[in-house]
Amino acid sequence: MTSDAVSGQQRRAELPFGARLGAAMQARGRLCVGLDPHPEILSEWGLTQDAAGLREFCARVLAACADRVGVIKPQVAFFERFGVAGLQVLSEVQAQARESGLLVIADAKRGDIGSTMAGYADAWLNPAGDFAADALTVSPYLGFGSLQPALDAAQEHRAGLFVLALTSNPEGREVQLATDAQGVTVAGRIAAAAAAANVSAAAAANVSAAAVSVTEAYGTPGRPAGAAEDLGSIGLVVGATTAGLAGAHGIDLSVGSMPLLAPGYGAQGASAEDLRRGFGTCYSRQVLVNSSRGILAAGPRPESLTRAIDQALEDLG
Amino acid sequence: MTSDAVSGQQRRAELPFGARLGAAMQARGRLCVGLDPHPEILSEWGLTQDAAGLREFCARVLAACADRVGVIKPQVAFFERFGVAGLQVLSEVQAQARESGLLVIADAKRGDIGSTMAGYADAWLNPAGDFAADALTVSPYLGFGSLQPALDAAQEHRAGLFVLALTSNPEGREVQLATDAQGVTVAGRIAAAAAAANVSAAAAANVSAAAVSVTEAYGTPGRPAGAAEDLGSIGLVVGATTAGLAGAHGIDLSVGSMPLLAPGYGAQGASAEDLRRGFGTCYSRQVLVNSSRGILAAGPRPESLTRAIDQALEDLG
Repeated sequence: MTSDAVSGQQRRAELPFGARLGAAMQARGRLCVGLDPHPEILSEWGLTQDAAGLREFCARVLAACADRVGVIKPQVAFFERFGVAGLQVLSEVQAQARESGLLVIADAKRGDIGSTMAGYADAWLNPAGDFAADALTVSPYLGFGSLQPALDAAQEHRAGLFVLALTSNPEGREVQLATDAQGVTVAGRIAAAAAAANVSAAAAANVSAAAVSVTEAYGTPGRPAGAAEDLGSIGLVVGATTAGLAGAHGIDLSVGSMPLLAPGYGAQGASAEDLRRGFGTCYSRQVLVNSSRGILAAGPRPESLTRAIDQALEDLG
Repeated sequence: MTSDAVSGQQRRAELPFGARLGAAMQARGRLCVGLDPHPEILSEWGLTQDAAGLREFCARVLAACADRVGVIKPQVAFFERFGVAGLQVLSEVQAQARESGLLVIADAKRGDIGSTMAGYADAWLNPAGDFAADALTVSPYLGFGSLQPALDAAQEHRAGLFVLALTSNPEGREVQLATDAQGVTVAGRIAAAAAAANVSAAAAANVSAAAVSVTEAYGTPGRPAGAAEDLGSIGLVVGATTAGLAGAHGIDLSVGSMPLLAPGYGAQGASAEDLRRGFGTCYSRQVLVNSSRGILAAGPRPESLTRAIDQALEDLG
């Protein structure tokens, strides 16, 4: 790596996650490649069902992502399944991916209260830890307020969170579309709280003035970090197939510049056209689309993987 | 260990989790000791903030639990915080605890859908894995139905689940007490679904007839496994301070013989009297009370820890 590249990387680490994500999406598009080494795909790729198989799988996917994709999302369960050795692979893969300039969203869906939530946030967002990621998915069954230690850690480490809100699986609706006495849905409350967290973080950033500009850090035409057009660092998980429900339930996804992580694209899920329709005006600026199985099914041949990635990038616009 | 003890342990592993838990509570009482190596307690005990500190902390708590307590609950976040080395300690501690006859509830609050949920269940409930536990706490933000792969794994491995339902933190109510169109709360739906899972498991067990009796496995006066008085293997997490809310919201905790894991006892939480009042008629048979900080604060001296445990056991009745 050249010293220019290293210095660019150091500058990037000083930006809040939202600014890094916005720049990555500008430079590389809205595709996030899901790193889902589930048992069937390991078999299909002729790999062993163990840590060595995981390691080889990840190496192939990362190679295909290099210089093409801005963001990857390892699905933590598929590493945890192989115990300590599996998590050792995850640690190495996340470090390697970040070193190569990819943003890493650890899809761990952690959620707890108080010092326990702080423990998870420290595990996944502290850059000194084995599992250091740029952002973490979190689950708000214990209330959005229970995530405060993770919000604090995200702020401290310039990392991001994606809070489960309106997921694509139908059985989620019994929780996510339940309402309070005012008729506001659970997902709506989560969305409003996440948006408010971004609004107050942006206000604080405007006062202190960002120390590094996106232009400096990425070497692309840009803007000062913390500018109005930056994405917030607190995002939501909103299913590609359920985004359309948001409007019907009075959930406004456009406030607070929330990044919206949308699983469920491709394979048996939503098309790019469904995504554009479902997310409406939020699509172009806020939506990061995850594709796991749709891309992985094209493997293991490297040229098939890169073709699948290029097609998805083009399709998603 | 004598060959009788080994054989008793093998027989115990053949019982469903609910039967093992019921027998452990009969033999040792309703206290579950929380293994929460949070940063402050490590400092207070003069231990290092690393895997070695974790290991020593756990050894001391396990020694105090030996022959006194039936169940321990490691708080996974405090191990995950120390990365791969921390999880290696967790793996060793869980194995050692189970070998000594303690039941282990891994408090990991995992939750996802489909094969990802199956991955977590495999990680924590498969006895061949590094993190093998007797039961796992799970989070239902994605709907109770999303937990089906974990229910299947619990059945397969004779393990248990504790599903977050009505937790003690006040900010949880915005999710847990939200209602559907029929006015049923989210927590109520979760409770009803968990109860139904136990009812159908019990029906299946009655048909096949249990292969091993609780009496044989524990060497205590007992009953055939799967008998009507057994606890189910699918339980709920219901806060010690919020159990009283259940009745007010029409949530019936008495159906389906659900084990009810109640955090929030002692320290600044609920008293034994609060628990008896809050859980009402469910208290004596279904409630397993977790105490972490109340007991750990008495350490690190072994005799202080065992005294705190004995006092809690007596207090909880």
